Amino acid sequence: MSAIPVGLVGVTGYTGMELARILSNHNKMKLVRVTSRAEAGKKLADIYPFLNGMELGALEITMPEVDDLEKSCELVFLAVPHKTAMNIGGQLFDRGIKVVDLSADFRIRDRKTYEEWYKVDHTREDLLPKAVYGLPEFYRDQVKGASLVANPGCYPTSVIIGLTPALAENLVETTDIVIDAKSGASGAGRGANVGTLFCEVADSFRAYGLTSHRHTPEIEQELSVVAEESITVSFNTHLLPIDRGILSTIYTKVKDGVTAQEIRAAYAKAYDNEKLIRVLPEGQLPETRWVRGTMFCDVGVVPDPRTGRLIIVTAIDNVCRGASGQAVANANLMLGFNEREGLALAPMMP
Amino acid sequence: MSAIPVGLVGVTGYTGMELARILSNHNKMKLVRVTSRAEAGKKLADIYPFLNGMELGALEITMPEVDDLEKSCELVFLAVPHKTAMNIGGQLFDRGIKVVDLSADFRIRDRKTYEEWYKVDHTREDLLPKAVYGLPEFYRDQVKGASLVANPGCYPTSVIIGLTPALAENLVETTDIVIDAKSGASGAGRGANVGTLFCEVADSFRAYGLTSHRHTPEIEQELSVVAEESITVSFNTHLLPIDRGILSTIYTKVKDGVTAQEIRAAYAKAYDNEKLIRVLPEGQLPETRWVRGTMFCDVGVVPDPRTGRLIIVTAIDNVCRGASGQAVANANLMLGFNEREGLALAPMMP
Amino acid sequence: MSAIPVGLVGVTGYTGMELARILSNHNKMKLVRVTSRAEAGKKLADIYPFLNGMELGALEITMPEVDDLEKSCELVFLAVPHKTAMNIGGQLFDRGIKVVDLSADFRIRDRKTYEEWYKVDHTREDLLPKAVYGLPEFYRDQVKGASLVANPGCYPTSVIIGLTPALAENLVETTDIVIDAKSGASGAGRGANVGTLFCEVADSFRAYGLTSHRHTPEIEQELSVVAEESITVSFNTHLLPIDRGILSTIYTKVKDGVTAQEIRAAYAKAYDNEKLIRVLPEGQLPETRWVRGTMFCDVGVVPDPRTGRLIIVTAIDNVCRGASGQAVANANLMLGFNEREGLALAPMMP
Amino acid sequence: MSAIPVGLVGVTGYTGMELARILSNHNKMKLVRVTSRAEAGKKLADIYPFLNGMELGALEITMPEVDDLEKSCELVFLAVPHKTAMNIGGQLFDRGIKVVDLSADFRIRDRKTYEEWYKVDHTREDLLPKAVYGLPEFYRDQVKGASLVANPGCYPTSVIIGLTPALAENLVETTDIVIDAKSGASGAGRGANVGTLFCEVADSFRAYGLTSHRHTPEIEQELSVVAEESITVSFNTHLLPIDRGILSTIYTKVKDGVTAQEIRAAYAKAYDNEKLIRVLPEGQLPETRWVRGTMFCDVGVVPDPRTGRLIIVTAIDNVCRGASGQAVANANLMLGFNEREGLALAPMMP
Repeated sequence: MSAIPVGLVGVTGYTGMELARILSNHNKMKLVRVTSRAEAGKKLADIYPFLNGMELGALEITMPEVDDLEKSCELVFLAVPHKTAMNIGGQLFDRGIKVVDLSADFRIRDRKTYEEWYKVDHTREDLLPKAVYGLPEFYRDQVKGASLVANPGCYPTSVIIGLTPALAENLVETTDIVIDAKSGASGAGRGANVGTLFCEVADSFRAYGLTSHRHTPEIEQELSVVAEESITVSFNTHLLPIDRGILSTIYTKVKDGVTAQEIRAAYAKAYDNEKLIRVLPEGQLPETRWVRGTMFCDVGVVPDPRTGRLIIVTAIDNVCRGASGQAVANANLMLGFNEREGLALAPMMP
Repeated sequence: MSAIPVGLVGVTGYTGMELARILSNHNKMKLVRVTSRAEAGKKLADIYPFLNGMELGALEITMPEVDDLEKSCELVFLAVPHKTAMNIGGQLFDRGIKVVDLSADFRIRDRKTYEEWYKVDHTREDLLPKAVYGLPEFYRDQVKGASLVANPGCYPTSVIIGLTPALAENLVETTDIVIDAKSGASGAGRGANVGTLFCEVADSFRAYGLTSHRHTPEIEQELSVVAEESITVSFNTHLLPIDRGILSTIYTKVKDGVTAQEIRAAYAKAYDNEKLIRVLPEGQLPETRWVRGTMFCDVGVVPDPRTGRLIIVTAIDNVCRGASGQAVANANLMLGFNEREGLALAPMMP
Repeated sequence: MSAIPVGLVGVTGYTGMELARILSNHNKMKLVRVTSRAEAGKKLADIYPFLNGMELGALEITMPEVDDLEKSCELVFLAVPHKTAMNIGGQLFDRGIKVVDLSADFRIRDRKTYEEWYKVDHTREDLLPKAVYGLPEFYRDQVKGASLVANPGCYPTSVIIGLTPALAENLVETTDIVIDAKSGASGAGRGANVGTLFCEVADSFRAYGLTSHRHTPEIEQELSVVAEESITVSFNTHLLPIDRGILSTIYTKVKDGVTAQEIRAAYAKAYDNEKLIRVLPEGQLPETRWVRGTMFCDVGVVPDPRTGRLIIVTAIDNVCRGASGQAVANANLMLGFNEREGLALAPMMP
Repeated sequence: MSAIPVGLVGVTGYTGMELARILSNHNKMKLVRVTSRAEAGKKLADIYPFLNGMELGALEITMPEVDDLEKSCELVFLAVPHKTAMNIGGQLFDRGIKVVDLSADFRIRDRKTYEEWYKVDHTREDLLPKAVYGLPEFYRDQVKGASLVANPGCYPTSVIIGLTPALAENLVETTDIVIDAKSGASGAGRGANVGTLFCEVADSFRAYGLTSHRHTPEIEQELSVVAEESITVSFNTHLLPIDRGILSTIYTKVKDGVTAQEIRAAYAKAYDNEKLIRVLPEGQLPETRWVRGTMFCDVGVVPDPRTGRLIIVTAIDNVCRGASGQAVANANLMLGFNEREGLALAPMMP
């Protein structure tokens, strides 16, 4: 069987780069279209010199034309800003092209909530019920049958994986969840911006999105599904002087009578059969480098009897697991491949 | 008036380096003794090349001898590990030499608590009531009259300054405090250690001291004083790939009926007259670089009505404000100088 | 005597920040005007949060008006791009205001050379003979009497200090000089630019200005003065993933019969009386951190008999010694102060 | 065909880690033995947490026993210090086990030169003529038939690839070669060492091995083979604050009459058919990140008519191309596989 032709709309950012990295070693999908209004006409290696001498580097960047994408691709990845994604993703869906959207446009099931946090009108409310939230461990079967997948946000991926077992098994209070999340600078994108210059980020650390990060409703939506009640969380973000990686430290209050053994059992039950989620042995805690360049989500589980809390720490690579790698996993499922096809990536250390 | 002669016991670590940096520009204290068992006989510039060509660089490193320190110094800074500090600090105190101890040995007023967390016997319990906890903003008058000052830990400095106004004014619940603290690698010291090699720390981030960091009892002790009740906190630490800096994100629950205005008023009242604590304008959040190399503690105050929480973010330079700079401030007070003598340091940016 | 009022035109970049840092602790100059077209109306602390709570932070940013600068300042620092500097610097000079220009506009004595490398017309050729090249160690007396000082480039500072003794004493071939220079990212300025984003610079290293860097003619001009013959050098630059610092490795061929002793003697003779240039002891080599935040230029001298070469390594802080600190040293001289007034900065380590 | 069983002696360093990373995705070799005196008895994932949940992570670390290695492996990689490698490598060779030695012990063909630079006696001089220098592009056929391959040093790999076309085609002077090389901190190994602590390396840059680096004789040996005359080079090294990567800037004098076209033609001729060496288009220069995690060697060729020089810049990943990846390429050849089996690695960016 020859490889399935796929496209990428929006090729200039870090998620585009990462998709190119992954697909350059994927045997069952072939990237045949890459688009960018700003860079059309160039070869991919002109803007991504790491592709010099690789087959993908010779691919020409084109303008994003729906007709052309329809003709040439079976599935299209969207790595464009929200609102733009809604528009082009909607058109592709209408023409029967499978879509994995890396923006937030189809993640929030409630239109009003979306519009409140993202400050734009949603013009394709009709697609919201059709979009599947692409966290494979929790929505595997739905993704397989989906034509439109909303690829999860990077922070939500790290938080939802971390909290699901505790909430699903009813081990922690739902009213007292605090998430202290830290992300590498690639999460801020590749736009020219004083705030993410090397000299503004290196050898420093800052809080930046306290109480108001747009990933909050996405996290609350998914945790509420798990807990079967409406959950409000305190979600707060910080900027790390690293390229890749998110580490989320999640603070919860343990319900009366719940033991450390029960907690560890819940995480084992949830994830022992999941190849890409690694619940660490007692005494080990996640580090972003141990998942660098991969789909792994490492989970540390730390009950604290002294304070009656359960602390959960998760680490992911925000560009791979938190964006493009997860998009490929979803595409694999949508196209009938093994979920981890092309994603057997070993961490790069150091 | 000629400068007061002072000594430094333990010269090989980062706190020793920082003390040398600060004292090289201090007009009223003169460093006349620096000791190290391992480096005795060398010039200070041999082990700190940054002192090449500076007067201090020519100072010879000697063995730590109490007799010699007694004869040559009016005040001695101790930058040695706990237990060692207790011993030499006790002897110097007995001979009437003023001591600023940068270790934990005299910070914890309760001997049993100390022994439990530090796993050593305390052999100078007699000095515990005489030692003053050297956080100048809160113990200024006591420090002025003290002969033995326990210089605060780096993390506790950042946390106590952050929480004091909220607790003193009774604005937040005392039973629900979570501290997510992050420190640069200098906090781990200058010992040869695989875990703090460049390739183990750079481009990565990790949690390392969840629920069990030794600074916990120090934080709880001081917060309990402020709140006038016994407080237990969830204190958790992470390692940042930066040289210097601690940023603590502190999560509290606001008491019913307390408004954002009251909260901001409490912080203004507490710190408006403090030159070295800067409560940031609304909308600004602390970054470690803005305090780099200085005594400033920056405080961001973020009420979150949506979740009923108050988030406080503080940033300090762990080596300066969190160790050697604060030690010099304490020494200034003990010797009758202006608290900020030699400490008018502007942040280095970038 | 009250402090001399000085101004700063162009306040938004790293050199402006550094000037603010230095002048915030300068007793004899007072910064009374800071200008920026983009930021006029704000307080300085609004754009430089590190100045929160410091006197300088309250200074209002104004539009750059020559009339106003003339009335309010005795000396003005220009931290604006070349060409702009020529214009406003020329006007200030005409009105009798002392000027320290941090741009390249008055560094190159030969108009044609300037125009060739900088690709703009020089409109104030009349001032070229009046401008003094502000490398204090070599032009101290001229700077004292100057009204217009061309503050040297960062790379040229590191190279000229490194090569002068060898060339002045006729120890190396003038036809075979190769300079491999490496600079931290602050040298690229604070403009929004994809190429200097954190994720483009961190954990990477690149050559960027081989054979064609604009500092080449400045280096050749000054070395030719020293050697008393026209010198062409191969000058090549690289971008380091650090905030501050330049390290230049300079390769020369030793003339026949010249010994290592003669070489070391030449460097001792040249710099033993210079407080801000430190020729390192044999066996020590410069590191950028040992000069961080200071005016020091560290010089390592490594004769290599095996290859008949002399390698000279220099390290400076590009923002301090390579720009704003040196500008203050020049201003000190122009205003009759001690050259190192306000510049007794100890290196920050780590 | 089932995978060939291979072993790794010396598992605790960065080259061991990298070999584990690469072999975890290699279909034709299976790592069945990993040894370490210090860590024997542990699982590989205990010391390399990045292998948690991967098959290789469960492999038990054993003591290095030649009998056991002989029985279990067809080929053994040696990642132990020089001298140790000579001993165990010799024994394995004697028993007919294929060996890829990552140390320097079999790289230098002349025993005396080896002993002079490495300060130890060579006890297996008999094997020197049998060892093949494993730079695949130049010794591919010999490696295929070899039982003992001396895997090249990291710096030499970057330098020899850079200079070979110019020397082979007689385009540059052989008497005037200067190499300014810069390496990431992983090159210094994973031993506990103050000099490579995060706070000693981060935000700094230093020269460290001027005129005397042990890779000098290896470079001179191989360049002399290419040039067919004895070549002496000035080879000098610096420490970069990055994890991985070497960038070498190589300065040569162009022979009279040689044109830029001839130079570019020579590099094209040499490398156009080599998949893992990428001569960059004019105007592009190497960056270490574009080769991160891969076997690529990027080569920038910059003729400089103004100074009569040719500057060649190369970038490699020192841990992959400069060590373990190249070792796998050699093992592939020795075992009859495609040279790039398991090495189709796309660069990780950012």
